[in-house]
Amino acid sequence: MDFRDILEKYKNGEIVLEEALSQLASLEIEEMGFASIDTSRQKRTGIPEVIYASGKTTEQVRLIVERMYEKGMDILATRVTEEMSEAVKTIVPEAVYNPLARTISFKHKEEICGNGYIAVISAGTSDLPVAEEAAVTARFLNNKVVAIYDVGVAGIHRLFHKWELIRNARVIIVVAGMEGALASVVGGLVDKPVIGVPTSIGYGASFQGLAALLSMLNSCASGVSVVNIDNGFGAACQASLINKL
Amino acid sequence: MDFRDILEKYKNGEIVLEEALSQLASLEIEEMGFASIDTSRQKRTGIPEVIYASGKTTEQVRLIVERMYEKGMDILATRVTEEMSEAVKTIVPEAVYNPLARTISFKHKEEICGNGYIAVISAGTSDLPVAEEAAVTARFLNNKVVAIYDVGVAGIHRLFHKWELIRNARVIIVVAGMEGALASVVGGLVDKPVIGVPTSIGYGASFQGLAALLSMLNSCASGVSVVNIDNGFGAACQASLINKL
Amino acid sequence: MDFRDILEKYKNGEIVLEEALSQLASLEIEEMGFASIDTSRQKRTGIPEVIYASGKTTEQVRLIVERMYEKGMDILATRVTEEMSEAVKTIVPEAVYNPLARTISFKHKEEICGNGYIAVISAGTSDLPVAEEAAVTARFLNNKVVAIYDVGVAGIHRLFHKWELIRNARVIIVVAGMEGALASVVGGLVDKPVIGVPTSIGYGASFQGLAALLSMLNSCASGVSVVNIDNGFGAACQASLINKL
Amino acid sequence: MDFRDILEKYKNGEIVLEEALSQLASLEIEEMGFASIDTSRQKRTGIPEVIYASGKTTEQVRLIVERMYEKGMDILATRVTEEMSEAVKTIVPEAVYNPLARTISFKHKEEICGNGYIAVISAGTSDLPVAEEAAVTARFLNNKVVAIYDVGVAGIHRLFHKWELIRNARVIIVVAGMEGALASVVGGLVDKPVIGVPTSIGYGASFQGLAALLSMLNSCASGVSVVNIDNGFGAACQASLINKL
Amino acid sequence: MDFRDILEKYKNGEIVLEEALSQLASLEIEEMGFASIDTSRQKRTGIPEVIYASGKTTEQVRLIVERMYEKGMDILATRVTEEMSEAVKTIVPEAVYNPLARTISFKHKEEICGNGYIAVISAGTSDLPVAEEAAVTARFLNNKVVAIYDVGVAGIHRLFHKWELIRNARVIIVVAGMEGALASVVGGLVDKPVIGVPTSIGYGASFQGLAALLSMLNSCASGVSVVNIDNGFGAACQASLINKL
Amino acid sequence: MDFRDILEKYKNGEIVLEEALSQLASLEIEEMGFASIDTSRQKRTGIPEVIYASGKTTEQVRLIVERMYEKGMDILATRVTEEMSEAVKTIVPEAVYNPLARTISFKHKEEICGNGYIAVISAGTSDLPVAEEAAVTARFLNNKVVAIYDVGVAGIHRLFHKWELIRNARVIIVVAGMEGALASVVGGLVDKPVIGVPTSIGYGASFQGLAALLSMLNSCASGVSVVNIDNGFGAACQASLINKL
Amino acid sequence: MDFRDILEKYKNGEIVLEEALSQLASLEIEEMGFASIDTSRQKRTGIPEVIYASGKTTEQVRLIVERMYEKGMDILATRVTEEMSEAVKTIVPEAVYNPLARTISFKHKEEICGNGYIAVISAGTSDLPVAEEAAVTARFLNNKVVAIYDVGVAGIHRLFHKWELIRNARVIIVVAGMEGALASVVGGLVDKPVIGVPTSIGYGASFQGLAALLSMLNSCASGVSVVNIDNGFGAACQASLINKL
Amino acid sequence: MDFRDILEKYKNGEIVLEEALSQLASLEIEEMGFASIDTSRQKRTGIPEVIYASGKTTEQVRLIVERMYEKGMDILATRVTEEMSEAVKTIVPEAVYNPLARTISFKHKEEICGNGYIAVISAGTSDLPVAEEAAVTARFLNNKVVAIYDVGVAGIHRLFHKWELIRNARVIIVVAGMEGALASVVGGLVDKPVIGVPTSIGYGASFQGLAALLSMLNSCASGVSVVNIDNGFGAACQASLINKL
Repeated sequence: MDFRDILEKYKNGEIVLEEALSQLASLEIEEMGFASIDTSRQKRTGIPEVIYASGKTTEQVRLIVERMYEKGMDILATRVTEEMSEAVKTIVPEAVYNPLARTISFKHKEEICGNGYIAVISAGTSDLPVAEEAAVTARFLNNKVVAIYDVGVAGIHRLFHKWELIRNARVIIVVAGMEGALASVVGGLVDKPVIGVPTSIGYGASFQGLAALLSMLNSCASGVSVVNIDNGFGAACQASLINKL
Repeated sequence: MDFRDILEKYKNGEIVLEEALSQLASLEIEEMGFASIDTSRQKRTGIPEVIYASGKTTEQVRLIVERMYEKGMDILATRVTEEMSEAVKTIVPEAVYNPLARTISFKHKEEICGNGYIAVISAGTSDLPVAEEAAVTARFLNNKVVAIYDVGVAGIHRLFHKWELIRNARVIIVVAGMEGALASVVGGLVDKPVIGVPTSIGYGASFQGLAALLSMLNSCASGVSVVNIDNGFGAACQASLINKL
Repeated sequence: MDFRDILEKYKNGEIVLEEALSQLASLEIEEMGFASIDTSRQKRTGIPEVIYASGKTTEQVRLIVERMYEKGMDILATRVTEEMSEAVKTIVPEAVYNPLARTISFKHKEEICGNGYIAVISAGTSDLPVAEEAAVTARFLNNKVVAIYDVGVAGIHRLFHKWELIRNARVIIVVAGMEGALASVVGGLVDKPVIGVPTSIGYGASFQGLAALLSMLNSCASGVSVVNIDNGFGAACQASLINKL
Repeated sequence: MDFRDILEKYKNGEIVLEEALSQLASLEIEEMGFASIDTSRQKRTGIPEVIYASGKTTEQVRLIVERMYEKGMDILATRVTEEMSEAVKTIVPEAVYNPLARTISFKHKEEICGNGYIAVISAGTSDLPVAEEAAVTARFLNNKVVAIYDVGVAGIHRLFHKWELIRNARVIIVVAGMEGALASVVGGLVDKPVIGVPTSIGYGASFQGLAALLSMLNSCASGVSVVNIDNGFGAACQASLINKL
Repeated sequence: MDFRDILEKYKNGEIVLEEALSQLASLEIEEMGFASIDTSRQKRTGIPEVIYASGKTTEQVRLIVERMYEKGMDILATRVTEEMSEAVKTIVPEAVYNPLARTISFKHKEEICGNGYIAVISAGTSDLPVAEEAAVTARFLNNKVVAIYDVGVAGIHRLFHKWELIRNARVIIVVAGMEGALASVVGGLVDKPVIGVPTSIGYGASFQGLAALLSMLNSCASGVSVVNIDNGFGAACQASLINKL
Repeated sequence: MDFRDILEKYKNGEIVLEEALSQLASLEIEEMGFASIDTSRQKRTGIPEVIYASGKTTEQVRLIVERMYEKGMDILATRVTEEMSEAVKTIVPEAVYNPLARTISFKHKEEICGNGYIAVISAGTSDLPVAEEAAVTARFLNNKVVAIYDVGVAGIHRLFHKWELIRNARVIIVVAGMEGALASVVGGLVDKPVIGVPTSIGYGASFQGLAALLSMLNSCASGVSVVNIDNGFGAACQASLINKL
Repeated sequence: MDFRDILEKYKNGEIVLEEALSQLASLEIEEMGFASIDTSRQKRTGIPEVIYASGKTTEQVRLIVERMYEKGMDILATRVTEEMSEAVKTIVPEAVYNPLARTISFKHKEEICGNGYIAVISAGTSDLPVAEEAAVTARFLNNKVVAIYDVGVAGIHRLFHKWELIRNARVIIVVAGMEGALASVVGGLVDKPVIGVPTSIGYGASFQGLAALLSMLNSCASGVSVVNIDNGFGAACQASLINKL
Repeated sequence: MDFRDILEKYKNGEIVLEEALSQLASLEIEEMGFASIDTSRQKRTGIPEVIYASGKTTEQVRLIVERMYEKGMDILATRVTEEMSEAVKTIVPEAVYNPLARTISFKHKEEICGNGYIAVISAGTSDLPVAEEAAVTARFLNNKVVAIYDVGVAGIHRLFHKWELIRNARVIIVVAGMEGALASVVGGLVDKPVIGVPTSIGYGASFQGLAALLSMLNSCASGVSVVNIDNGFGAACQASLINKL
């Protein structure tokens, strides 16, 4: 039931004004006291409610998963610990834990629905946890994903090795720490949107990813936008919205 | 005995000048060597002496509680560890430990004396430790508190779900990490003072709460002021002073 | 006409669904292409639409004032240049320009409606532009204001000179640059809410007010909240909301 | 002539090895000593060579425009001064100067080729120079653009006034200073990619746009990516690539 | 043997030129491969070589102490762990470990040689480790020290309680975290040099002491200088030099 | 009349309680509305009230000088413009304007009262405005001053050229921009207190003096304390207090 | 086989166009899925592929070493844990683990090929891990290395003790934390390139090496360049390239 | 006359001890009161005394040039205004003013003495002032220079266009603003030392060159070191020392 339905019912006299106002307010929320699950997020924004486990207790994660599972929703939790993954599996035994990406996920049905594929490129092996978070999330959102790892600009020919795969993607996620130059180099060579994900990998003056973040924001290549440091999840969401256009 | 009393006694010859100066200086301090308990703070500022346990040893916390308890004062310690809470209970067995808020408290008498209630709103479940610190503190200061959790702007309709509760508060505390936009959105919709508490929750470029702090300080809504990152305690103190006007 | 009115009309068949949705959306906005004047802000938030002139052209300011004046609204523009004030006076000749505060204002009727008065305290003479912005704004919002200037902690006895005036205020705005310690000192002595306004005054490592901002956010006095650097306007809005409780 | 052509010719013996290497290197560059115009950028990246005038002398801008005009290229220069616009018009009299956006542009043929339209939303009137730079650029890149200005979250109902226009866009650019919350609010309500452009508008602790930048990077809405502060140009480029998918 | 002695000997033919140059270079250094002990530092700068244990291994600390002890030097090591203190005691059993100050020290002879005493004032109990480091160091450098703890500005009358002790000091060290206002308040009331030591104590936006550091650097009281965050040692050195003038 | 006098009078019945409280509060302040001149500062802190002209209008500076001159006080204003100096001279024609130091000053009587002299050392010629501010201030405070300029560590032998002058000072002010290493080098060679003044001179990553500030705060020489960037005035005040011990 | 070879073969008809393009792309990469080993880096840049272990799992390090060892490459891994070193030794038992430098390395043949030697100078004993990383790396790259430790400017004569060794080096690496002044002092005294390596050693306001970094970047000595904080490896690479000129 | 000469004379009785000490101290300084010209810098460090005009008055620059010219020294002043260049020409009419580089220079004799040439590469036309400062300085220091401008990574094939020129340089200076990726890309392709010069060119979040600075410091290519933002002079000095090895 959505906004128009409520107004229609109200007009038809099926509900009174107070009821209408109340229904408008309670549209598709699952109340849990410490959490309010946004069950209409998928319909509204194209991306379902996902659990960001950082800062939550294992018990909170477990309870949210339980409620979402009861409501028939697909499950994706990011930044989970191994302990959290164990707790989730007591409820959804078939959930898949990816220790590198720090995710646990479960889908009722696998499907691919984007118009092409998303390329996830990482500059170094140390960037893999973030790249994997992006890949796992993009697949959870029903996109085809191609992963291309360890092709940073210190050996730029490695990038050309996978050139066809990159050019043919519909949208490209570039995951890089240190100076993050890979985003500019890729952005200067393709005619597809590039989403940069700076990572917190690097020596001291990377300042936990600030260097790569500023670098990508200042890209001289004009088709590059940026998400938060280490936020593979956010990049995949943005890429998924684009891939489904 | 206060400032005027001392001057009066001095005039009446009950005490000599040196005595008067000395009494002025020693007005209501409880000396402990490593600590000087400000026993007149409640009367002077409306907020009693509270123990900020961070950076103190368990033994120091225990000794301060012991002295305050002997003096008949109510007890609130924030940022306590479980070990500290155990130590406090050896002195005040009925003290209440709240592990989420990281507080331990004891009041000789519960009472409610503000002119309305304080709403404590959190953007996400991960912001709960700070929101709970605010709620515990506000209740300790004799305010009625209504807690409304996990209503951040990613699903803004969740906020409207609790709209009446929010509008009717006398003062509103908004606890939010990440981009902290909730403070602006609430501030733009109500005619009550809003106190923003940025939290240190978020991906890399939240820089331990700096993003939310700057966001709230730059709120385009004009009735918003801000306290320190993760400082639920300070927000509750300010809110309590307002609620008692 | 507000939300409930529109729903009521719709139910009575006076308007159709599309009309209802449209009316809901266009509730009290004054469209100007480059600006959308929020004519219901006063009713909704207790603070009317005010023009922040920084970044706007003189012509834009003039046009907005013209439209607001036609709609019978009171006028306050902050951060105006002298040129802007001249342009405004061609429309509202009786508008008052305060060059120190950089404001221009006009009210159809003066009135005082708060429950007490707002004290505006400045640490130094160099902080006056910000303090005056706060005072002008608070008066525009119908509050009684008492201004107490140049009483910073380098000569703390100056503060005590005006002590009764400070203690008796209902809410206190402290405007200070350099190290901003005045907010803590005042906050540690009164039982009223203190709103700190850091200013950009100071030697190099004030970093345009960052030092005072951090200082006030870290106030060891617990009843202090803070607004943006040099934001006298915002402090006055918050103080006005509190004063009218 | 491109990479494959050169290799083909070389194989057929039309050119010798040294010639092939030389041709590979000189592929579509227009050498000017102080500048190397990238004439193949349009074909390679979907976005033509554009002149970023900041830091260049008027004479340098004039010479680059002259050369590009001789080569039959379309012209867009951003961050131009009025003096620069006059100099450009001596060469391309029909070029259009937009003083608000600080752009000068000329196209041989107007056309619209994206699959939908790009919505450019600004939070405040002060954000207009950046929003206009985005709109001018997006139109230069052959996109249909819809501009929606001054709908920031301090009066969030202004946003809903233009709701249909926003929802139906193919990609959305949100331009906002101060706390930049508009990006999160829009991102939480639509299923289209949102590109945030933080602006340098705001009081002191906006730190020339840092507050809005961090705010948008930390957006709790998951479909938001970000470009550099005040970089309307970059946002339009990214949006254009997406709109043409 | 110092610079003039070497030249004199050289002139008298007791040593040849190469020998002179070599002796000049090796003036009072104790070579240990991984360390070069500056045995003439006391004579040259008034402060002896002290071991900063942070970043050193326990074994390195032990070896340096051993060598210094063999050379008859007094021992002070700061930032020592308990393990390091145990290792030092195997060499100098009578060395005194102060776990709060994190120091271990040994003097061949106690003496007091300054012209007055150094007051070490701390704002809060949580600042004690730094205040104690300052007190231990100042005593090691043969100064009389008076410690006055927990007298921060949230209860400014606590400061006046110890007023005579403070005024009569020859130099005053103020140790404070959070907003560090105590340095300004003391500096505005006395005619003695005040050395501020910001500490890393505080909520989030103290940024590990940055807030207190900037606050003290921006002190509106003119007789305040500042040392590094948490650097009680450095403050004591500076105070000792002043006290011995 | 001071604190004790007031209490004495009160006791003898010469004044009533209200009068006593009022007199205590108004002790030696010169009220000017926009300014409160602290006429007892000299007696209380050893440093007289000085006018920091930055952020004040020329008229405000003129009025303060006029009042102070009427009260028979010596005059020092820092950070004055040429226009301000002209305005001051209309009141105190014999006042001395130092355009390099940006000061204007007037003393009723010259005298030297410290126990030695203050050395003011600058690293480069570009640091002279700050060094001169320090020298002018120190002389105003009745100290003998020796200025030693342009002896930075890029040519460290220049420093040794003036070695005797430096060693024999009672306290040393080191003014340096860029990397500020001069403070450490001097501090490592003398047994006198060194006060570092970082300046805002340098290439981009000096960040307006931040580099020199951090460098001096982190000095490995232990007898160095620091004042604000470009704050020659503050360094001279601290040095004067030390010199008069 | 390099670029020219491939083109030559293609011309001679030995390979077809598609084959040529493919070969160009796959030039000397060793594909491992999670890593792409750049086997031609030595030839291309003068520095072989080295493993930066930070952020990699022990298993990833082990697998990369295994593959490189199979290919006959020399092995250097930096930032290794003890666990990693054990894993590497299961493959290359003769590999040398340096726990202070946190490196493990193996060379098939030792040789010295630079034109002089590299001096590695450290300011303090606490800087040794970084200095050792530089020394290990420089030796791995076949350079002669002379290490000179603990000669910081607090006792500048220690530096002169080793003066001949320093002057005669072909290139000098200066490793220093705290204020990093040693780089300027050395740079001001020699006619050889100096490479500064700031370290993260120091009290609070060193901000994990930021102070030393800014200090070295702002060196008033003109022959100093800088690498990342704690990046002994990078300094050694640059020094090696210079030494082999 | 140098150190050894003075000692020798002293030994031979030609000068007495006091004379020797004095001569040691005054070794080759040209005293001017506000400046101490380091006339031995060329011999000591390989780079002569150069005038950094920023922060100096025109008169100071003129006087220093006058003195240096009298002493027969070559002249280079950087960061000069046009007014300064006019003043210099009144003394040295044949001095060459480069308005783009903001330099004025004069050499008694042109010569080339390095072992190869220095390549100065700039990413964009806006970076030219810094690149030209580097080129002018390097030529002043008797190096052959090859300038290659506007070859940034947004069109990376422009770089290959000048590939032979780059590879054959003895040392390479890369001047780049925005994200500064060019330094990494070049560094990953050559076996020569690369010196990065970040420039302050770019949109808001370049933060006046901070982005490019951090990017270059974090270069994943290992043969890159960095100098200060916009410091073309410093890069040329370092390059010259290397080129002359």
